[in-house]
Amino acid sequence: MQALTRREKSLLRALLTRGGRKRAGLCRCEGLRAVREFLTERPELVEFTVGTERGLASLGEVAPISFRLTTEEEFSGFSATVNHQGILAVGRIPPFSETAPQGDFILALDGLADPGNFGTVARTFRAIGGHDVWYTDGSVDPWGDKAIRSGLGAQFSLRFRRFAALADLGKQAAEYGYRTLFVADPHEGEVCFDCGDLFRKTVLVIGGEANGASTPPPGSRKVVIPMPGDYESLNAAQAATVLLLEYVRRNRGGVKC
Amino acid sequence: MQALTRREKSLLRALLTRGGRKRAGLCRCEGLRAVREFLTERPELVEFTVGTERGLASLGEVAPISFRLTTEEEFSGFSATVNHQGILAVGRIPPFSETAPQGDFILALDGLADPGNFGTVARTFRAIGGHDVWYTDGSVDPWGDKAIRSGLGAQFSLRFRRFAALADLGKQAAEYGYRTLFVADPHEGEVCFDCGDLFRKTVLVIGGEANGASTPPPGSRKVVIPMPGDYESLNAAQAATVLLLEYVRRNRGGVKC
Repeated sequence: MQALTRREKSLLRALLTRGGRKRAGLCRCEGLRAVREFLTERPELVEFTVGTERGLASLGEVAPISFRLTTEEEFSGFSATVNHQGILAVGRIPPFSETAPQGDFILALDGLADPGNFGTVARTFRAIGGHDVWYTDGSVDPWGDKAIRSGLGAQFSLRFRRFAALADLGKQAAEYGYRTLFVADPHEGEVCFDCGDLFRKTVLVIGGEANGASTPPPGSRKVVIPMPGDYESLNAAQAATVLLLEYVRRNRGGVKC
Repeated sequence: MQALTRREKSLLRALLTRGGRKRAGLCRCEGLRAVREFLTERPELVEFTVGTERGLASLGEVAPISFRLTTEEEFSGFSATVNHQGILAVGRIPPFSETAPQGDFILALDGLADPGNFGTVARTFRAIGGHDVWYTDGSVDPWGDKAIRSGLGAQFSLRFRRFAALADLGKQAAEYGYRTLFVADPHEGEVCFDCGDLFRKTVLVIGGEANGASTPPPGSRKVVIPMPGDYESLNAAQAATVLLLEYVRRNRGGVKC
């Protein structure tokens, strides 16, 4: 088994920044579940895997690609977490999707700036069988280290597109037949549990943590999660989860309603 | 306006640890929305408020209690966040609840170890109008700095009880007439969207991030969130959100079903 080269070590540091990822066209994916997802779903993108003996053993039946063995101490030096699992993969960032979106709705993230929230939403969307995540400038990089860890690598099974603004996103979606934007609103709109059109070839827009979604294009509809308490709205990741699981509720058992 | 005393400064540091909070019987509550919640809901517990001029101004109509003015630089020195909002309050930790639980169900957190998740769940429960959060040893301290920040201070409107184990919790709940424990399970159980008994004087148990809930006492029932994808389950905070909003879905418009 090979050891890490000096170039690879400096690459691991560089990939923690957006600029570093852009220059290299690569991302780093840390943690057991995320690495498993990467190795299983997109092996053709993986450049190399780094791990300690413990990390390697934890992979079980999943074979690492171009494995570099390292010590626990050295791993701690480049790990982004305090209690690391001793396993990490580096690979190419997949290009933006150019295929037609699939499924009953596109998930759109408009200015979602927190990598933990981005990852959580990606993970939930992957868990309910979603495919297409479109996002606007001002959203966090899906391929950042923290976003990948929070998403448990769900990113590698999803298809992304990026747009300058929500209007451009809406226009592109309409060309594929996804004509209505439903924008999650903390205060008003059609009630998510009752709105029959919510998942009928639509775009579900989740806004950012601080300011919500940007001004939606004409023809958009607002959807609200009813809240009995006179209190703060749910955070962005929680709101997304509620809407995504509402989709599951309606479609469980193969019966669509 | 007074400045911070040396004793208060060292207290701010001490309250970042569980031991320090226990010794002092106090907690620290940082960030605008959390401080507002603390000052509004439990002013009788607040010992003092610390802020910069910017932080003080952001409080708006909410009056601070025993205000200590500090500089931005000094505040950065004891803030637990990188981009602080210049406002923080210190106050007594409320005692465990001794009144009978209220509402259709008790929320039980069994070994929920991540303060961010604990706070998020508290915030969502508060948002749907919940009252009683019971938890077992092994769960994170609700009064830790991160848990309060993630909860936006929802803790100050909730009532907590702590138990050595889930069995003790269940026994106590039964004495108040909350006879059935529904334990959220990632793999199997009654489907949350269909289970008619879910909120009929019950205890809703959310397990920890790593190992789920501990072995439930006899007579408990499992409840599952159906997941179409062959994938990881939702994280603990997302699972709690789905179950709590299912309660809202059934009870919106005042119609209970």
